[in-house]
Amino acid sequence: MRIELPREFERLGAVRIYGSQKIYELDAGPGSPGCGEEDGVVRRLAAESLYAVQREMVVVVPVRSERLKLIEGVLVGIPQPCPVIVVSNSPRAPIDRFYLEQDSIGNFCQFTRKPVMVVHQKDPQLAAAFAAGGYGEILGEDGLIRDGKAEGMILGTVLARLLGRRYVGFVDADNYLPGAVNEYIREYAAAFLLNEGDHVCARISWHSKPKVVEQALYFAKWGRSSRQCNRVLNMLVSHFTGFETDIIRTGNAGEHALTLDLAMSMPYATGYAVEPFHFVHLLEEYGGILPQTAHGDMRRLIKICQIESRNPHFHAAKGDGHVDDMVRGSLATVYHSPLCPDSLKEEIVATLRHLGCLPEDGLIPPVRIYPNLAQLDLEAFRTQVRELLERRPGAARGAAAGL
Amino acid sequence: MRIELPREFERLGAVRIYGSQKIYELDAGPGSPGCGEEDGVVRRLAAESLYAVQREMVVVVPVRSERLKLIEGVLVGIPQPCPVIVVSNSPRAPIDRFYLEQDSIGNFCQFTRKPVMVVHQKDPQLAAAFAAGGYGEILGEDGLIRDGKAEGMILGTVLARLLGRRYVGFVDADNYLPGAVNEYIREYAAAFLLNEGDHVCARISWHSKPKVVEQALYFAKWGRSSRQCNRVLNMLVSHFTGFETDIIRTGNAGEHALTLDLAMSMPYATGYAVEPFHFVHLLEEYGGILPQTAHGDMRRLIKICQIESRNPHFHAAKGDGHVDDMVRGSLATVYHSPLCPDSLKEEIVATLRHLGCLPEDGLIPPVRIYPNLAQLDLEAFRTQVRELLERRPGAARGAAAGL
Repeated sequence: MRIELPREFERLGAVRIYGSQKIYELDAGPGSPGCGEEDGVVRRLAAESLYAVQREMVVVVPVRSERLKLIEGVLVGIPQPCPVIVVSNSPRAPIDRFYLEQDSIGNFCQFTRKPVMVVHQKDPQLAAAFAAGGYGEILGEDGLIRDGKAEGMILGTVLARLLGRRYVGFVDADNYLPGAVNEYIREYAAAFLLNEGDHVCARISWHSKPKVVEQALYFAKWGRSSRQCNRVLNMLVSHFTGFETDIIRTGNAGEHALTLDLAMSMPYATGYAVEPFHFVHLLEEYGGILPQTAHGDMRRLIKICQIESRNPHFHAAKGDGHVDDMVRGSLATVYHSPLCPDSLKEEIVATLRHLGCLPEDGLIPPVRIYPNLAQLDLEAFRTQVRELLERRPGAARGAAAGL
Repeated sequence: MRIELPREFERLGAVRIYGSQKIYELDAGPGSPGCGEEDGVVRRLAAESLYAVQREMVVVVPVRSERLKLIEGVLVGIPQPCPVIVVSNSPRAPIDRFYLEQDSIGNFCQFTRKPVMVVHQKDPQLAAAFAAGGYGEILGEDGLIRDGKAEGMILGTVLARLLGRRYVGFVDADNYLPGAVNEYIREYAAAFLLNEGDHVCARISWHSKPKVVEQALYFAKWGRSSRQCNRVLNMLVSHFTGFETDIIRTGNAGEHALTLDLAMSMPYATGYAVEPFHFVHLLEEYGGILPQTAHGDMRRLIKICQIESRNPHFHAAKGDGHVDDMVRGSLATVYHSPLCPDSLKEEIVATLRHLGCLPEDGLIPPVRIYPNLAQLDLEAFRTQVRELLERRPGAARGAAAGL
């Protein structure tokens, strides 16, 4: 991979938000390990160095009723060195879709010897593990892990930590382009290679998103929701730096990766707010603006790295119904943050009203926030999960051994 | 890359046509060089082995007025070890599009240090080189190389041979997915790794081709033209083997690669017939059916390898106008072959009539065929081209040195 170095960054306290980086070559070939130093502006990252990072990176694929063809394509795109955890929340009745997924992934693993772990979000043992670890907030009234992609991501993060790896990366299961999945994971690895330290977050901004417009394809750069989300996050940053900025381009980035040290020391928002809340939380905790809390060790240097992918983002159409929720969810994280100045609150209300997304009472509902994962007793969780994994050799058909 | 071994092949004389092979992993990681032998059905090809082949493979990108953004994306997708030749036939007036291409590619090479050679199909020196080499058939009445992608591919092949490499692969410039380009080239390398010898042809069958149908996307597997082309080629094979077959799935494959020994010993058809004519020619020359000709050394074992790509083929829409020409052109190569039995001739006429592609006189016009490239005096060509390349340092801005 050949990648541009970031040309700028915004700093608040211990948080550095880097400007988006361009990719010049998906595959820069082999070479001596480590970063190529040959150029001041563009870095060549040899294949071996990327593989070395990938071996330390668990890729989590949240699944919910995606077509099996698409899930298989995503697995095809994930580089072999990465262990994979598929967290499914697909319904088990009237058709047991989870069984079909396990079967199809197991079959795929027969051919590829890929280490893939498949778990179901509603597995009572996983719920019991969270309860045992003192993180019962993630459980619903039925005692199982709540529905939601964010909840699946939390589960995947904890399992990745238990596998003893250093990084966790997320990839959606509804991607039509195995080549794009492959690119995202190379980019995660590139970010971790370029940014040393245990508190790094890598976020992908899509090159474009093809849409059908008037019987033809149009390559949109920004969705309606990400445009608003980035704008509001940038206004938040600008408020504290005093300089207007458009540095944040990945507010809603579903494609992102974190060092596990960072991921395991963050609270998580639910729903569409999960990704923008990363920014809000990191600024709250390490931005040096609010009084310091128990978790935020200001000696940590937090690096948020943004990379512009080269492949378009081409995923299964889910309809437009969720866009309103998405805008409301992501703006709510900023609105309800103790960092949010009154002027920005007014702007958020005006924006939501303009978009027709403001509830009738004019109040922006807060987003559910799960506690900091640092509060989870990992050893108590591990005890429960070890038993579960031993009981479940069929799920990964011999692949679990490789994890 | 992890790839299935072909499950079947059809043999005619010295020609083996392998059944299409499935890809299980785009990137199977690093490992000991050579083919992984761990499995009887699926082979793991380590990154190092693929790179070793890529270093010996020139990638030719024919360009004609494609958007610069797309050309850059294609270059981003080509793995670094491959030298690249861009053969442009873009108009030089009223806007000098070739100048824009050179400028944009030169700029890109500044960042990537990618070895890219850029030539124009209408360059008088290249025409002079073909004339000096005794291959004047490729020149039009104006003394320059004729228009056409096939003519650009012939030029690219000869230049690749002059660069001293072993393989040549073709990639279209209008591909929206850098990740797909990357995949094709890995697949070419995989084919050459799995199939030893100097007479190998690798052809890609697309996973699917997204189309806009009723305001939504539909992933078509076969275009109208490739369906007919494959059907007729399979009927030709079946006629001689006595067994009905559907083995040929890449009759029209624009994405293909050849060992240069094979590419330099073939005649070429023009227009849309160039790719299906590979099959027709190889069967004529090495199929053991016709009396042997001067070029076809039957001791050669010709291997045609077909690989199903995992990324969809997503390219710039050119409209449907060319499909009729495409069907007519590809079926004409079979119709006018001395191999074609009368029954198949009747079938071809009936097919074209049914599709509304038969000319009014009921006669299928023959396709222009250029002589076997073995007739080109390569040393005479080289003398002309060496001078040209020395005169043109700006074209590749220091990148030519790397070729």
